[in-house]
Amino acid sequence: MAGNTFGRIFQLTTFGESHGMAIGGIIDGCPVGLKLDFDFIQKELDRRRPGQSKLTTQRKESDRVEFLSGIFKGETTGTPIGFQIQNEDQKSKDYSHIQDKFRPSHADFTYEKKYGNRDYRGGGRSSARETACRVVAGSIAQLILQQHGVEIYSYVQQVGNITLLNEFNEMDFSQTFENEVRCPDAAIAKKMSDLILEVKKEGDTVGGAIQTLVKNCPVGLGEPVFDKLHADLGKAMLSINAVKGFEYGSGFCAPEMRGSQHNDEFEKTDDGIRTKTNFSGGIQGGISNGEDIYFRTAFKPIATIMRNQASVTKQGEATEIEGKGRHDACVVPRAVPIVTAMTALVLVDHLLRSKISKI
Amino acid sequence: MAGNTFGRIFQLTTFGESHGMAIGGIIDGCPVGLKLDFDFIQKELDRRRPGQSKLTTQRKESDRVEFLSGIFKGETTGTPIGFQIQNEDQKSKDYSHIQDKFRPSHADFTYEKKYGNRDYRGGGRSSARETACRVVAGSIAQLILQQHGVEIYSYVQQVGNITLLNEFNEMDFSQTFENEVRCPDAAIAKKMSDLILEVKKEGDTVGGAIQTLVKNCPVGLGEPVFDKLHADLGKAMLSINAVKGFEYGSGFCAPEMRGSQHNDEFEKTDDGIRTKTNFSGGIQGGISNGEDIYFRTAFKPIATIMRNQASVTKQGEATEIEGKGRHDACVVPRAVPIVTAMTALVLVDHLLRSKISKI
Amino acid sequence: MAGNTFGRIFQLTTFGESHGMAIGGIIDGCPVGLKLDFDFIQKELDRRRPGQSKLTTQRKESDRVEFLSGIFKGETTGTPIGFQIQNEDQKSKDYSHIQDKFRPSHADFTYEKKYGNRDYRGGGRSSARETACRVVAGSIAQLILQQHGVEIYSYVQQVGNITLLNEFNEMDFSQTFENEVRCPDAAIAKKMSDLILEVKKEGDTVGGAIQTLVKNCPVGLGEPVFDKLHADLGKAMLSINAVKGFEYGSGFCAPEMRGSQHNDEFEKTDDGIRTKTNFSGGIQGGISNGEDIYFRTAFKPIATIMRNQASVTKQGEATEIEGKGRHDACVVPRAVPIVTAMTALVLVDHLLRSKISKI
Amino acid sequence: MAGNTFGRIFQLTTFGESHGMAIGGIIDGCPVGLKLDFDFIQKELDRRRPGQSKLTTQRKESDRVEFLSGIFKGETTGTPIGFQIQNEDQKSKDYSHIQDKFRPSHADFTYEKKYGNRDYRGGGRSSARETACRVVAGSIAQLILQQHGVEIYSYVQQVGNITLLNEFNEMDFSQTFENEVRCPDAAIAKKMSDLILEVKKEGDTVGGAIQTLVKNCPVGLGEPVFDKLHADLGKAMLSINAVKGFEYGSGFCAPEMRGSQHNDEFEKTDDGIRTKTNFSGGIQGGISNGEDIYFRTAFKPIATIMRNQASVTKQGEATEIEGKGRHDACVVPRAVPIVTAMTALVLVDHLLRSKISKI
Repeated sequence: MAGNTFGRIFQLTTFGESHGMAIGGIIDGCPVGLKLDFDFIQKELDRRRPGQSKLTTQRKESDRVEFLSGIFKGETTGTPIGFQIQNEDQKSKDYSHIQDKFRPSHADFTYEKKYGNRDYRGGGRSSARETACRVVAGSIAQLILQQHGVEIYSYVQQVGNITLLNEFNEMDFSQTFENEVRCPDAAIAKKMSDLILEVKKEGDTVGGAIQTLVKNCPVGLGEPVFDKLHADLGKAMLSINAVKGFEYGSGFCAPEMRGSQHNDEFEKTDDGIRTKTNFSGGIQGGISNGEDIYFRTAFKPIATIMRNQASVTKQGEATEIEGKGRHDACVVPRAVPIVTAMTALVLVDHLLRSKISKI
Repeated sequence: MAGNTFGRIFQLTTFGESHGMAIGGIIDGCPVGLKLDFDFIQKELDRRRPGQSKLTTQRKESDRVEFLSGIFKGETTGTPIGFQIQNEDQKSKDYSHIQDKFRPSHADFTYEKKYGNRDYRGGGRSSARETACRVVAGSIAQLILQQHGVEIYSYVQQVGNITLLNEFNEMDFSQTFENEVRCPDAAIAKKMSDLILEVKKEGDTVGGAIQTLVKNCPVGLGEPVFDKLHADLGKAMLSINAVKGFEYGSGFCAPEMRGSQHNDEFEKTDDGIRTKTNFSGGIQGGISNGEDIYFRTAFKPIATIMRNQASVTKQGEATEIEGKGRHDACVVPRAVPIVTAMTALVLVDHLLRSKISKI
Repeated sequence: MAGNTFGRIFQLTTFGESHGMAIGGIIDGCPVGLKLDFDFIQKELDRRRPGQSKLTTQRKESDRVEFLSGIFKGETTGTPIGFQIQNEDQKSKDYSHIQDKFRPSHADFTYEKKYGNRDYRGGGRSSARETACRVVAGSIAQLILQQHGVEIYSYVQQVGNITLLNEFNEMDFSQTFENEVRCPDAAIAKKMSDLILEVKKEGDTVGGAIQTLVKNCPVGLGEPVFDKLHADLGKAMLSINAVKGFEYGSGFCAPEMRGSQHNDEFEKTDDGIRTKTNFSGGIQGGISNGEDIYFRTAFKPIATIMRNQASVTKQGEATEIEGKGRHDACVVPRAVPIVTAMTALVLVDHLLRSKISKI
Repeated sequence: MAGNTFGRIFQLTTFGESHGMAIGGIIDGCPVGLKLDFDFIQKELDRRRPGQSKLTTQRKESDRVEFLSGIFKGETTGTPIGFQIQNEDQKSKDYSHIQDKFRPSHADFTYEKKYGNRDYRGGGRSSARETACRVVAGSIAQLILQQHGVEIYSYVQQVGNITLLNEFNEMDFSQTFENEVRCPDAAIAKKMSDLILEVKKEGDTVGGAIQTLVKNCPVGLGEPVFDKLHADLGKAMLSINAVKGFEYGSGFCAPEMRGSQHNDEFEKTDDGIRTKTNFSGGIQGGISNGEDIYFRTAFKPIATIMRNQASVTKQGEATEIEGKGRHDACVVPRAVPIVTAMTALVLVDHLLRSKISKI
């Protein structure tokens, strides 16, 4: 009810503030007998971790996940998987400069009004640090999907006004993590990287967008009415910090289109029944149809900037927020593994749900 | 688990196929003592009903809702509200022409693959007829919100390439339902209407977008992590038939913006602490901050067109789908009350959830 | 949240008051392709119906169930099954004698305090009439269980001080519904019947107990911690009107026993690994072990008696409740199909849950 | 879905095996601003802990709970409360003697069949060690209830054939924890203690029963149909290891009673409307009526005995289980704080649920 659980069958519940003892979670409903590839899980976590490159914040966190239960001899047992990631140096900092002030476009004001007793240290529960737990669970979900041949490719498609417009089949996704931006096109990645560094130098931040492509999704995932597959994917993306929009298939181009253009006609192929086009984005009536699923997620520029901003104190007095600290200038490079993780959580949950619709 | 329930506290569960005996639902968790304005509920339903104007399908359905329980002396009792809407003429038609064929961009193929035993008459469960039940529940939710002063304004903002770009405060929402398109600007509405009629004459359909504005939403609605207010609004919108995208606040403009532009600075006003701008769209950290909430929902062109299309039969043979029947040429005019209903369901649910976060 | 839904995968949500338009429900999550035996469903309903024999109330209700959705060509489609049972003569009676009075050991007082706006006609939502919806859903659940060979036998084991003490294997369950008491032993049934009639003549009521035996339950149903199979069975039974206690296996004899007596040793048989005794009641660690599951449910005497009783009005004044109307003198004969229905709902839900614990 | 979560609003999710790294849990939905009394929480935990007295197992576990999140300046923040209890010496023991054998009346056989990959060390997830997490959450729930004046008294009412039959008002509950048995009557406690020691000397175990009394429960807790207050209490008790039965109010005496005896007549008192008797056990129609709530929970004798028993190996061969190790001879003394914890969890959950039934 307090919204810290995601999923219906493969369920992740998370806890933790950025400056408490630890963050962590419980994965309940993971099927038994899954061999865990701990290196893969840690690698996904490392992709989200701050301090990886000159593009990201220089805060150092080792982000080592410890599993506490639910695993025996390297395989899942069907019992809940408890895990935690220690917070480091959580006591050292001084937060007096923001303790009583509301940072613009942060959650300080709304948390204060909703809860009253607010952990103001580093954003507390509203910090994106919480997403590390999503990456842990999402990596395990990916391991299940890999067994079913499902492939998820997320990449930075836009930073500011620089956009990668290629078709999916023109891209080499093995290159995505070869650069710091996480864009599979090296030339575009370079431009994006330059823009981020320029914006950073100005003490500013910039928004971006992530594109996701899912290949080999089984036909039949998704429920027909409220839990349409794209509705659950949309909620998953919109639950990530800084996300402002979600579109799948034709998305926000659809309003301008005609039905005769947009309809995906069926044809018989050697590969079974396929559609000639894919404006549907691999989902029809809320249910996957076996074609590529693709969607795009829009992120705002990070709210913490290195400039002074007008604000108001808890007591209602005008004040100023000083720009200081170490923060990313653009959220999307580090958000790629988070988008992938949330995608995997939705797909695995619906994969398991699809197993119970027949006797 | 099968996805026919929406909401956590104010819960709507629906049933019904377009050509079965009836559609209907159960609203569980409606607070006790709410005086029901049956005329208001029916008026909202009538706005969704087919056959209202020359823009919409000429199928006639009276869509009278009957309440079966949960109401005593005109007020809710706290027990579940059962309701139904009879289907008319459900037995008369001939569906042999689509029984074994997959209509492009409809749910025929995915239902066939997911379920096997598919009610092919008029789309069955995938028909937008199901949304009438959402309007019933959403209208009751609106009655609760009205008691809290919350106002919801949805309107057609785009049809094809015609878009209403005015600021909210330049619009007179009392005019929205004065035209058949449901656009508050009469001149733009006329252009949209002309476009729809032109497209219809061509046997084609066209997409559109609906804008929603929520005024006077209490501060503090929404949960911080997975059930962010905008994530639940996004899921609600994406669960409506034909929706392809959702954005709130700065939305898909955010990727191009700088933090220094996008941040909404706080200021002290006679009206309390307010933000100077509202790129956040009234929601920060997933929680309403008291400013206007606004979001935009993109709809694809309706899949049923009056032209012949290539397709494949259940048996895998190439075939053709004939364009016939009475259908809308653009979904957005009739979708306005559905968008409002889903918005109301999300807000009431979070309003009730917010009551339990304090002792 | 308002407690009108039962089950996690095979979910029943019910609505309806005893004197409203209709009662009914939605079954969501029923697997696709189940052939429905409508005669079987109606037969189960008829066993619960009042007016069947001289032992039960002479109120006449036809209790015909109408299915509104989710069924196509006689089989389930995987979409929600909506159903309703009309209430008859719901407007005719005069309730002024109980409108402002709290009947002893009824729910009048607690509903008044909890809700304020109470439908006082015939008990409203607290009436056992609601259980008819459980029987509809439970019958469908039984049809699924029959496909898996699971057999459920419930019978009246006690009325007042008359108790059937035979071993299960000494009983012929085909005889249970051959008498009005629903006890498989004709001689004991006769004594029970005589007692009920005697009590009835005195204007009084008497309690009873129902024993349930489940044969051929698959091994592995039930979840290890909170949703132990017997915990869910216990909740199911305790949710039935008038139930005061639940025990399974050794039950309330267990406190007096020694471990050396109570432990069910394993042995190898031609039939696989079996236990020599079955004090566990077919469930170990919350999970079915393949042995017979058995449990006993205790019912209080019905609160409506044909005698005058002291009470208090809504306004807090001392008053008297007159004994009048047509009511059962003992609840257990009509409760047998309800106990069976709730048992079937729990077992089917866990059967479906068990399908998702493996990849 | 895997059954490791309890509660609807105040939700506890637990993880952990007896011999893994740690056990722990997440409490989601705890209201904000609750001052935590850490000594009280630890004291409750200590009452459950093994090694406290000569009656209980001599295994030493310190059972220190560490809170990881959700608390700021000693008060809850409304965000999830993560906690853990380290397991000690989890690697040292040798389990080869039970690795491939099914201990009678333990969960070895059912876990093996359900999961395949079973953590056989000390019972794994089926170990009662998991209940320590319930005590942590239940203690926090008790702190909330204390603010509302609700008092919970659980005590050992029966061990073997020794039973405490006094009326509640004849007992001094301050004495319950003054003896090792946790029975408020010192003389009866002595007899129980003697019996347990005698049974222990014989290498055997004995069952028992715990009585619970709740005073000052607010009127109106519980939902009318499936989530009746006593149904949720029953499920809570039946989910505790070794429980075989649950009864409330008149319980298993009800079947023998007449309605004229059993009905609790209302009367006007200085204290408002009260019932003259309380066979209802403080709950009518599933909803608390303000009278004392009382119920009784039956426990079987512990399955681990110090005698050799016949069994079967995983491979299906006859074998013998050796009686060894350090175990309790009777579960009820240490189960008292668990019963109280589960009672508190149910009451707080319904207390919070009751806040949303009115607008």
